[in-house]
Amino acid sequence: MININRDKPDQNITKKFTQGDNDANKQSITKRSENYSQWFLDIISAADLADNSPVRGCMVIKPNGYAIWEKMQMTLDKMFKKTGVVNAYFPLFIPISFLSKEAEHVEGFATECAVVTHHRLEKNKNGKMVPAGELGEPLVVRPTSETIIYAMFAKWINSYRDLPILINQWANIVRWEMRTKPFLRTMEFLWQEGHTAHTTREEAHARALQMLEIYRIFAEEYMAIPIIKGTKSESEKFAGAVNTYTIEALMQDGKALQSGTSHLLGQNFAKAFGVKFLDQNGHEQYAWQTSWGMTTRMIGGLIMTHSDDKGLVLPPRIAPIQIVIIPIWASEKDHQEIIQTANSLAKQLQDLDITVKIDDRDMRPGPKFYEWEKKGIPVRIEIGPKDMEKQSILAVRRDTGEKQSATLIGAAEHIRDLLDKIQKDLLEKATKFRDKNIRTADSYEEFKNILEKGGFISAHLCLNPKCETKVKEETKATTRCTPFNQKEELGKCIICGKESKQRVLFARSY
Amino acid sequence: MININRDKPDQNITKKFTQGDNDANKQSITKRSENYSQWFLDIISAADLADNSPVRGCMVIKPNGYAIWEKMQMTLDKMFKKTGVVNAYFPLFIPISFLSKEAEHVEGFATECAVVTHHRLEKNKNGKMVPAGELGEPLVVRPTSETIIYAMFAKWINSYRDLPILINQWANIVRWEMRTKPFLRTMEFLWQEGHTAHTTREEAHARALQMLEIYRIFAEEYMAIPIIKGTKSESEKFAGAVNTYTIEALMQDGKALQSGTSHLLGQNFAKAFGVKFLDQNGHEQYAWQTSWGMTTRMIGGLIMTHSDDKGLVLPPRIAPIQIVIIPIWASEKDHQEIIQTANSLAKQLQDLDITVKIDDRDMRPGPKFYEWEKKGIPVRIEIGPKDMEKQSILAVRRDTGEKQSATLIGAAEHIRDLLDKIQKDLLEKATKFRDKNIRTADSYEEFKNILEKGGFISAHLCLNPKCETKVKEETKATTRCTPFNQKEELGKCIICGKESKQRVLFARSY
Repeated sequence: MININRDKPDQNITKKFTQGDNDANKQSITKRSENYSQWFLDIISAADLADNSPVRGCMVIKPNGYAIWEKMQMTLDKMFKKTGVVNAYFPLFIPISFLSKEAEHVEGFATECAVVTHHRLEKNKNGKMVPAGELGEPLVVRPTSETIIYAMFAKWINSYRDLPILINQWANIVRWEMRTKPFLRTMEFLWQEGHTAHTTREEAHARALQMLEIYRIFAEEYMAIPIIKGTKSESEKFAGAVNTYTIEALMQDGKALQSGTSHLLGQNFAKAFGVKFLDQNGHEQYAWQTSWGMTTRMIGGLIMTHSDDKGLVLPPRIAPIQIVIIPIWASEKDHQEIIQTANSLAKQLQDLDITVKIDDRDMRPGPKFYEWEKKGIPVRIEIGPKDMEKQSILAVRRDTGEKQSATLIGAAEHIRDLLDKIQKDLLEKATKFRDKNIRTADSYEEFKNILEKGGFISAHLCLNPKCETKVKEETKATTRCTPFNQKEELGKCIICGKESKQRVLFARSY
Repeated sequence: MININRDKPDQNITKKFTQGDNDANKQSITKRSENYSQWFLDIISAADLADNSPVRGCMVIKPNGYAIWEKMQMTLDKMFKKTGVVNAYFPLFIPISFLSKEAEHVEGFATECAVVTHHRLEKNKNGKMVPAGELGEPLVVRPTSETIIYAMFAKWINSYRDLPILINQWANIVRWEMRTKPFLRTMEFLWQEGHTAHTTREEAHARALQMLEIYRIFAEEYMAIPIIKGTKSESEKFAGAVNTYTIEALMQDGKALQSGTSHLLGQNFAKAFGVKFLDQNGHEQYAWQTSWGMTTRMIGGLIMTHSDDKGLVLPPRIAPIQIVIIPIWASEKDHQEIIQTANSLAKQLQDLDITVKIDDRDMRPGPKFYEWEKKGIPVRIEIGPKDMEKQSILAVRRDTGEKQSATLIGAAEHIRDLLDKIQKDLLEKATKFRDKNIRTADSYEEFKNILEKGGFISAHLCLNPKCETKVKEETKATTRCTPFNQKEELGKCIICGKESKQRVLFARSY
């Protein structure tokens, strides 16, 4: 098996060499410019991240996709715990009466609740299994857990000494969505939901902002997804919250993606569930609460921020496998020697906490290159006979395709630095794209013209929800947020012309 | 605040000193000898592991309990991955038609299925939220995931080259149990379920046994729970399996606990779901499958194996906090110095991968001792002014109450060795108890007499399921397993007197 021509890997893959390949290698990927939606689905399939399931709107997260989620979980979990948050687990089912206690909340979720009404199956006359054992009170499969968790908080909290409570839950969530799309909008998804209770509004507010900042750090420093922090409008905020804070990202097709939200719940739920405490003066007070969540939809954001027409691109800090080493050999003698070198380099990389895979399958290198390219491994290292002669390796960046030769001595450190650089470059590239796609509009006409370019539009909007609704109905663009730390600027609402004190970011969104 | 009398910690806790205490400190624990069931519930409450929820049969796993589960997960997950298993995630909902495809399987779970029949809520005439949007086909909340996972396997597997598939899922499971008990039997529980597919029966069989062995190692070496490996009877095996292998533990009240099972599914599900592959000769074959699971009920087993009348006892390898350091000071000057010493010791312990908590709350030491005792921290370290003088520490074992003085120099290594010893001693103690409680019976009379002592009974039983049923109905004892590696021994069935080739283990069980 001879193939050391790296620039043109042999595409004439014989049956023999397909061993170990999966379907991903046999598919082609639609170009973004041709059909962005299809490209997104193709990437998921080519990188083997997820598959449709026979249950309407539910996907299967395949091992490659789940490994990304595991890395996200591990990273976020550590960040949460450093701030004093602890994990717990609450029931999947919520009695309808609980969900109904906070009026806005139940209105917000009523149209998308999976409802359990029976607790067993029995055979009907035709021998078919049908539901039986009707429940006295139907149970809703959690669309979010404020109600069930705060019923417990009410039981646990007596005194100011019991506060703050800082709890997080990793769980599955069900929202009966009519139009679904893998990762971005599925009927069942995985998430974490944080829930806290405090003695004062100030402390709760600070916590809501602290968790939003953790989401920002996670999105930017790990996922390399630049985001804009801001406040949601009254109509876009979480059902039952006082304020919803959000991080908003911009995808390559110019649509926005809400990537994480943190809610100041005020005392709304505390009053509905009786979450009360005795303060230091012995007076009964309602607790101040927050909740905050990030979901598997972020994997959709990850795909749509970095990937290209060749496949998935993963930022090194979130890639389950960071390096793939591909030994290239012409003779068995070469093979032994090269594998030894690959093993030794892998060991050095592992000592630097870098995750490495050696792809030693009995296949030509070409198909291997394609496979790992599609799967988004940040750096491919090739070691062939010529490299051995020169005592060097070849490193190929997934994001740019750039090839670098490095001496074997010091190669591990070189690769570590390269991974850092890729991480930085990906964020920089995405930030440039995002910044280039924030435009201002000073009239509704201008707004509508700009909208076709995609991206965020910064425009004045008054506080009348009717103006917001008009934009949404006529253009499908929604307010994403009022960004934090915006300069105050007087202007006129692009819809009604009334006075507005600041600009709001609009976009079409996922 | 002066309290360095360690043998009699001051029990006269004034209001001031209760700061930071939780309810756990105020409850007393029922003695095992008085009411074992109540003792179990008291331990859960005293160690703050879980709480009842307002949803029938569902518990809330509180942070202390969930931290144990996280450690169990992390340990098992690593062990699985070392054998090539990867994680994935499959839908929560299973269409009834899927569950019905394997006849025995659906019969086995029909009586305990939560069924989703509607997908939204709407207000009725009285303004009450009621289920609406009836589904064409009702969905069952997974009681286990063989059917939905194997429907996917059928899609993914084409050729022998796609095998083996080795997948695990960490998930929540719902089984509508009528009588529930925290951790041991709850309507919703957490677990992992492994699912594999292979080209041959031999390979599948070897995998089922390999995973059972992992469960044994985990139970014995981490949870310090001695177990007996064996095969389930026809009537006790998993619905749809060819063989169910089990690890059975013995609780302190003499009842058995099924602690993990691994099933050889043969081709039963493969045939029901069309999990087929082309073998090396181009012939179509059904895959051979296994599934295996371990659940949060193991936390119940952990409690009932080691805990005592003072509270929870945790084996060091599974304890989220392994060491608590309690500084004891009489003056502020002492305090500073002691805290410095505590911090430095904590650092040294952390460097040895030991999890440490310094309890520096402004409380008397007595209540602290009680609190950590109840919560099962394996070793408490006390550092007081006299220890500082002698440059030593006092280490107190949770399991035996034994106190050891150790010089500050080398204290960390001493503690590490002590933790190892505690781990070993706990397993040894539980093994002795277990072995003392395996008795043989050679007649049904003898069987019934011995049964009142609790523990396992080894007795001959023929293969006629009627004999097994008779024992179950008359004594509530069930067959736990036919142990592996038992000597062959001819005998007579204690019920019908017919020939039996080996003894079976019976017990009353959770």
